[in-house]
Amino acid sequence: MDSQQFKDAATSAIDEIVRYYDTIGDRRVVSNVEPGYLKKILPDGPPEEGEPWADIQKDIETKIIPGLTHWQSPNFMAFFPASSSFPGMLGELYSSAFTAPAFNWICSPAVTELETVVLDWLAKLLHLPDCYLSTSHGGGVIQGSASEAIVTTMVAARDKYLRETTSHLTGMELEDAIAHKRSKMVALGSDQAHSSTQKAAQIAGVRYRSIPASKEDGLSMTGAGLEEVLKQCKVQGLEPFYITTTLGTTATCAVDDFASIASTLAEYAPPDAPGEIWAHVDAAYAGAALVCPEYQHLTASFQHFHSFDMNMHKWLLTNFDASCLFVKKRKDLIDALSIMPSYLRNEFSDSGLVTDYRDWQIPLGRRFRSLKIWFVLRTYGVKGLQEHIRKHVSLGEGFASLVKSRPDLFKILAGPSFALTVFNIVSPGGGEKEENALSREVYELVNSRGEIYITSSVVAGSYVIRVVSANPKAEEKYLRKAFDILVATTEEVRDGKSKPAVIEGDLRDIKGISEVEVVTMNGAGDAKPLADSTV
Amino acid sequence: MDSQQFKDAATSAIDEIVRYYDTIGDRRVVSNVEPGYLKKILPDGPPEEGEPWADIQKDIETKIIPGLTHWQSPNFMAFFPASSSFPGMLGELYSSAFTAPAFNWICSPAVTELETVVLDWLAKLLHLPDCYLSTSHGGGVIQGSASEAIVTTMVAARDKYLRETTSHLTGMELEDAIAHKRSKMVALGSDQAHSSTQKAAQIAGVRYRSIPASKEDGLSMTGAGLEEVLKQCKVQGLEPFYITTTLGTTATCAVDDFASIASTLAEYAPPDAPGEIWAHVDAAYAGAALVCPEYQHLTASFQHFHSFDMNMHKWLLTNFDASCLFVKKRKDLIDALSIMPSYLRNEFSDSGLVTDYRDWQIPLGRRFRSLKIWFVLRTYGVKGLQEHIRKHVSLGEGFASLVKSRPDLFKILAGPSFALTVFNIVSPGGGEKEENALSREVYELVNSRGEIYITSSVVAGSYVIRVVSANPKAEEKYLRKAFDILVATTEEVRDGKSKPAVIEGDLRDIKGISEVEVVTMNGAGDAKPLADSTV
Repeated sequence: MDSQQFKDAATSAIDEIVRYYDTIGDRRVVSNVEPGYLKKILPDGPPEEGEPWADIQKDIETKIIPGLTHWQSPNFMAFFPASSSFPGMLGELYSSAFTAPAFNWICSPAVTELETVVLDWLAKLLHLPDCYLSTSHGGGVIQGSASEAIVTTMVAARDKYLRETTSHLTGMELEDAIAHKRSKMVALGSDQAHSSTQKAAQIAGVRYRSIPASKEDGLSMTGAGLEEVLKQCKVQGLEPFYITTTLGTTATCAVDDFASIASTLAEYAPPDAPGEIWAHVDAAYAGAALVCPEYQHLTASFQHFHSFDMNMHKWLLTNFDASCLFVKKRKDLIDALSIMPSYLRNEFSDSGLVTDYRDWQIPLGRRFRSLKIWFVLRTYGVKGLQEHIRKHVSLGEGFASLVKSRPDLFKILAGPSFALTVFNIVSPGGGEKEENALSREVYELVNSRGEIYITSSVVAGSYVIRVVSANPKAEEKYLRKAFDILVATTEEVRDGKSKPAVIEGDLRDIKGISEVEVVTMNGAGDAKPLADSTV
Repeated sequence: MDSQQFKDAATSAIDEIVRYYDTIGDRRVVSNVEPGYLKKILPDGPPEEGEPWADIQKDIETKIIPGLTHWQSPNFMAFFPASSSFPGMLGELYSSAFTAPAFNWICSPAVTELETVVLDWLAKLLHLPDCYLSTSHGGGVIQGSASEAIVTTMVAARDKYLRETTSHLTGMELEDAIAHKRSKMVALGSDQAHSSTQKAAQIAGVRYRSIPASKEDGLSMTGAGLEEVLKQCKVQGLEPFYITTTLGTTATCAVDDFASIASTLAEYAPPDAPGEIWAHVDAAYAGAALVCPEYQHLTASFQHFHSFDMNMHKWLLTNFDASCLFVKKRKDLIDALSIMPSYLRNEFSDSGLVTDYRDWQIPLGRRFRSLKIWFVLRTYGVKGLQEHIRKHVSLGEGFASLVKSRPDLFKILAGPSFALTVFNIVSPGGGEKEENALSREVYELVNSRGEIYITSSVVAGSYVIRVVSANPKAEEKYLRKAFDILVATTEEVRDGKSKPAVIEGDLRDIKGISEVEVVTMNGAGDAKPLADSTV
């Protein structure tokens, strides 16, 4: 493909992408292909001779798009959004043009330097304490996902804990102590925390224990709840070294009680002393709201925490992936992840002259991801981003009002919070079991018809439906339509007002999908509802 | 940015990218900005009001491009290539348009299914044994980098080893055995293996030990060398559970002796039995050559190995990132990385009905990376890819012939192998110390002038210069120019034939860069030369 062919191909691709976005609301939001559909319609191997672009592009509309679930459709109200924007796409385009696995500074200085600059911008925009800026001992780094951020910080926390609590030992004594501690170390998170903390514990080779967050506390983890588990751990000889706290839990967007958690940690594992517990803030989705002053009080305790992560790729218009991790002490990451001897590290990297982000992450190479963040921040400006968040929060409030207007059908269990409304279906006869069954039936039927796409969860024993109004294309009319669909489907399922207008074949297709999905969403047990919707 | 604004912006961006590629050979190949250059010329935070695209785009040429090291320049002969292509860029463009953190099948079935299809295509194209196909018990998954592939497989291997060697124990006995084993488990790699195995061991919380690869064996690891280390481990009570073998080492493109390694492993840790050692093939760069039948004998022993990884983003025209990992038993990955209880997993995921790639990797979300691989395989076709590899191999042979034509100046230490030539500078008085000093001086002066960009390494005590002829824009004239520069610089440094025509300021700038780089390249000690050039 030469320069002119590329220009033609790219122009044609851009046209198709614009057409796709302009008509996305008209497509079935969730794909209804059957597992294995693509293999059946593609050849067994690559062609011997190269093919012209026109032939390849044709297959996108006919073979790929039918297999997409349209996350950018205004009818997509599931999980949390993975917001996309045109400036974000331009960022990815330039990033691929400037291809470089920029594993150290000289490999392409702009890749490192723009990342430092835009993450400092973002830290200030989100009202993080100054200790998270690159000008202090901390700084930000772009990771692929919030789960990678948790693995990365947990590995750093594990090694820091082992190093600091065994620094008085040598030889066999040291080896034995480390072996013993490894078997007793435990990472913590509330039972509403995303499943990625449990997965990170598996990867880091440590235990995981969850801290109950009660309905009375609005499903927020509290210092008191943490204290109880810390006491249990002590009795059982376990050594807590890491805790994930959450700003906006997956199931209900609950916010943990950071202040009381910080107090409890200060008492049980004094900060900046050997054995301190690394406290991470997972703000993957709701962290985006911190661009608005009305949410910034939530960061008041963060100087007592060790790391903070939010995904620009969820609610802040930056195409996946752009998970922004901030740490208070970059040295903690480098100590765990650099393979360079420390005497050399001190001389150069620690000088602050250059940053080698490969030592802040698990992979070695890295893409030029800061470009898309830079383009998004500049295209929207601070005011544009604030308007974006406020619009969605307001749409969520509107949707929740609609839900509340029908207490005969629906009961709100959480929210509206950060544009998420969580509710279930009321059973005229009462009884949680009936409500759960009804809610599940309504949920599955709605998704099977494919007009809107929503997710469910199990929260404190209740089967709930989640509706998120934070899609970039969200508008009042779509939320009203979603409400109407929910009303009609509930009346149909519960009161038999009309029959499902779905043909047998559709139902069978979709049954498969919704079973898979329910398993995937809730498979990890009650402690991890909606395990997957934070990415 | 609305649809029309995006069309205009994208057209302008495409024009700029084409211009960049058409003139890339005229730019200084390695950036000579000073550390911190960008912060000085950018504002302190994002703008309050959004900015038009034209203002943003202007900053790319003036502020970003000066800070790029141009990996796609034909004068870039450093590290290994990170090859880019126009079809690859189109893949990234569509991927960003279809933004979805596709963590399970229903999140966007096409993302999962195209990945399975193109990785099966690739496995066949690379002549991997059938056990690596998705139609067997194995399959492929796209990772971000070869280092991620190693962490992922090492974690799977660690957990499999622990599970299988302690399956007869319960309760406290089990816990003690696991704690003890964790402290004794050791991952292996040759002293020529990429540093990512050492880093993965740090992340997985296990030991690392390197196996000497001798000059006599062409720096390839052999079964005999492995046997010796396995015996040492036994004496010391260590438990080897993982080994990285390499097809194309970073420093010299050596190929490990897979057949004798497989024999040794079969003897010391019988396959498919508890305690077997997971053998991984890191073919990050040179694996691309397997598209040509003349290299396919190299895969003859791979059915005895557990995993294989090669980077489409190095030598196979796919923009970074596209590291293709193949495993023989996908269940090993899922057992380690899924957080879903096994009784649910068996029912759905293990049925083969759907693949949830999140259980084959560390992160949860994933981009639609298979699109770019698909576009590249179809645009070039099998023949096009073979021509691409053969052209570079032939250019490497041509360059090596030039080097050999001047035995008074240069001595070849390895290659040409997979388009890599490794040599040093001859000292008229003899003596390795002098040769090392001379080679280093020539290397640094060449890079400081920025006409070409090459890398150095330390191999078996010798300071060597590496020239790679596998850049997508590589041509004979550029390699001849590189040779002429090397001849002139050697004569200048060694024989004082002319003075460096570099002004003071330039030299100072570049000194900083080359020091940083040398440290970065060799900082991990002799056992890990050129630690960073495989990504």
